[in-house]
Amino acid sequence: MGANERRGVCFSALSSRKGHGLTAHATAPRALAARARRAAPLAAHRPDADAPDAGKGQRVMIIGGDGYCGWATALHLSKRGYAVSIVDNLCRRSMDDQLGFNSLTPIKGIHERVRKWKEVSGRDIDLFIGDVCDYEFLSAAFQKFSPTACVHFGEQRSAPYSMMDRTRAIFTQTNNVMGTINALYAVKEFAPDCHMIKLGTMGEYGTPNIDIEEGYITITHNGRTDTLPYPKQGGSFYHLSKCHDSANMLFCTKAWGLRTTDLNQGVVYGVSTDECDMHPDLVNRLDYDAVFGTALNRFCIQAAVGHPMTVYGKGGQTRGFLNIKDTVRCIQIACDNPAPAGEMKIYNQFTEQFSVNELAAMITEAGKKIGLSPEVINVPNPRTEMEEHYYNAKNSKLQDLGLTPTLMSESLMDSLLKTIVEYKDRVDQRLILPGVNWKESASVGKTLAK
Amino acid sequence: MGANERRGVCFSALSSRKGHGLTAHATAPRALAARARRAAPLAAHRPDADAPDAGKGQRVMIIGGDGYCGWATALHLSKRGYAVSIVDNLCRRSMDDQLGFNSLTPIKGIHERVRKWKEVSGRDIDLFIGDVCDYEFLSAAFQKFSPTACVHFGEQRSAPYSMMDRTRAIFTQTNNVMGTINALYAVKEFAPDCHMIKLGTMGEYGTPNIDIEEGYITITHNGRTDTLPYPKQGGSFYHLSKCHDSANMLFCTKAWGLRTTDLNQGVVYGVSTDECDMHPDLVNRLDYDAVFGTALNRFCIQAAVGHPMTVYGKGGQTRGFLNIKDTVRCIQIACDNPAPAGEMKIYNQFTEQFSVNELAAMITEAGKKIGLSPEVINVPNPRTEMEEHYYNAKNSKLQDLGLTPTLMSESLMDSLLKTIVEYKDRVDQRLILPGVNWKESASVGKTLAK
Repeated sequence: MGANERRGVCFSALSSRKGHGLTAHATAPRALAARARRAAPLAAHRPDADAPDAGKGQRVMIIGGDGYCGWATALHLSKRGYAVSIVDNLCRRSMDDQLGFNSLTPIKGIHERVRKWKEVSGRDIDLFIGDVCDYEFLSAAFQKFSPTACVHFGEQRSAPYSMMDRTRAIFTQTNNVMGTINALYAVKEFAPDCHMIKLGTMGEYGTPNIDIEEGYITITHNGRTDTLPYPKQGGSFYHLSKCHDSANMLFCTKAWGLRTTDLNQGVVYGVSTDECDMHPDLVNRLDYDAVFGTALNRFCIQAAVGHPMTVYGKGGQTRGFLNIKDTVRCIQIACDNPAPAGEMKIYNQFTEQFSVNELAAMITEAGKKIGLSPEVINVPNPRTEMEEHYYNAKNSKLQDLGLTPTLMSESLMDSLLKTIVEYKDRVDQRLILPGVNWKESASVGKTLAK
Repeated sequence: MGANERRGVCFSALSSRKGHGLTAHATAPRALAARARRAAPLAAHRPDADAPDAGKGQRVMIIGGDGYCGWATALHLSKRGYAVSIVDNLCRRSMDDQLGFNSLTPIKGIHERVRKWKEVSGRDIDLFIGDVCDYEFLSAAFQKFSPTACVHFGEQRSAPYSMMDRTRAIFTQTNNVMGTINALYAVKEFAPDCHMIKLGTMGEYGTPNIDIEEGYITITHNGRTDTLPYPKQGGSFYHLSKCHDSANMLFCTKAWGLRTTDLNQGVVYGVSTDECDMHPDLVNRLDYDAVFGTALNRFCIQAAVGHPMTVYGKGGQTRGFLNIKDTVRCIQIACDNPAPAGEMKIYNQFTEQFSVNELAAMITEAGKKIGLSPEVINVPNPRTEMEEHYYNAKNSKLQDLGLTPTLMSESLMDSLLKTIVEYKDRVDQRLILPGVNWKESASVGKTLAK
């Protein structure tokens, strides 16, 4: 069955609820129990989505394929018969070196990873090591691989990193925005029918006092109506770089007739996917430092090593979350549903909303069950953000295309905590407390080493 | 009288009409006559705005002060007692050299201009030649000059230039976005009370099917209400760079407590200001080529040299316009009304709306009166834009602060046409037809020389 035939096939296993509430004030343990009851088994977005030839005929270039989301996605698609290439300059590893960070899990080098994957799965992944900001390299990769879809994870993806100092602010916006412009030109020039799938972030929307729609909003104003890009309010140079990307991609889509999808992803948590679990050398990275570690993963690691969970400010900050198992399925869904030429699809890619306080309460509950004694401390908020606010973001489009959410549950939290406990001797507790303050961002960075 | 005392003083000479209609279908010659009757004499925004010490105590750094708007603004403020410095890397001149363009008017070098200004006016202008993307240079300029206001015109400002090829697209967004980030860091670090006044463009809004508000829009959605940044739809890499600037500046304003003003300027026309007219060596640049020449100026020049006016597509494209005499007054008003710390003011800086067809009709009428025989041709539209659309942009805020618009009138058009006829032998007609097509923008630029 060819790619075009498959595109129309879509098995919807959508559950009727949306998996999130309007406020941040639900009692967390009860909410957790309720969620555990509702958790559905993983379901594919079409009957044959997990078949070994599900992706036959599709050639997917994964920019940033050595990173947290990129690596899991590369294996997920490769396993299902999509021809996969990874484009990466490995700068994420170099940032760890520079800042003295490390992944909780002992990840292998990319060459070793790809060799092991071939050994374990029998599948090849093409490797292009280079920088998307280097157009000569990028165009060679496009010509060599001839992608039918390009999944662009290849951006500096930490808000605190972007706020460390002017140099890193400039790096973040240059790397992300110019890298995406290059990728758009490469599609236009070498693969005009290639479906460009770019990762954005839910953080592009900020925390408006109205419902967050999926990318576009219909506004009636002074008696007239139009559907326009949803107003964006990025809260760091990183988040802003993603806003800029979205605006640039929308323009190129219309001006050049490209096929594009913008995925505004929530905070990803977890480390396990079926493919990364196939061999210890395929293990995914898991960040716990205050720069690259995101809320849920970082809290679990803090709980596991006996460090109090560091809630920034009041903890009423509410965001959308998703399990990395769903990230990889969302990308597969996007690949299988290319946008028509000249149209940019926008999906909000998360499955549940939680406040920081809810997260901490859920982890406390789950931690106790496996013999931990998690504690919470409120530390001064290093960011400029609202700590109590309305938050209601829509996320039905991916579910309409067949995503069945992997909801937060005790068993999932259990297994994440147990994985972490296994590696807890690798944790450097000095890296946990926030070291980057939004207001203090200066032209010349301070040394982070302590 | 010090700057702080003056800030509350505001003489409003606002006329009651807004100077624009809702549609692009008014019969142009009649509209012109009506406008001529209504044209008010230039009026200051406060009684002493034109006094030789009106700007006493203010130190205004003008980034891009060698350019079309920047040069006129520098002289306007300098004449009125504002201490002025110009920061410029002169890249606009170098672009003319590269592309084989020239200003219709024979402009002098910046050093000669500044020396002549001192001779004519007795006023000093400090000159810092360098690049805002070079932070070492920019921070030295800030420390040396200690600005109380920074007016940022220093961006690549041509949409066609940004669409020529990938290199120039990347240059435009890097130069503009990173230059502005540098300027924001410089303000934060060296002059935290300095009022940052950044030039945006009306083109950031695109052509939505609802009224265009001034920067923010109050949206009621699913029963809740919030005031959010107006949705942007930039129509070229240049326009998008300005959208990115606005988003970055709004974030920095809130995170760092800066005082900022974003001026979404319309298409500027004209060449004469009181100060530029004081000596031939102070003459401002006037661009007529298809890359840097904007609609009204370019049409006048075409009419003057006997080249048909080149209307792109159907000519229903409607935009906001203002005379350069008003640009300089708007900047003075902005300087005199600094934003409170942590707030970004946004004004739409234009005085009248016209469609391209209306412009062509007005120029035809005015040209005939001075013995020209202007003609119009419709050429294929090189841009991706709507050619017939709703357009109603608000522009009351600057008028509420005292701007009295210099409306388009027969006498103004007369004097512009006569100035142009004076220099018409300098026109290279090969530069007039559009050479940059939005759809054809490729990774490697073609040679423009013919």
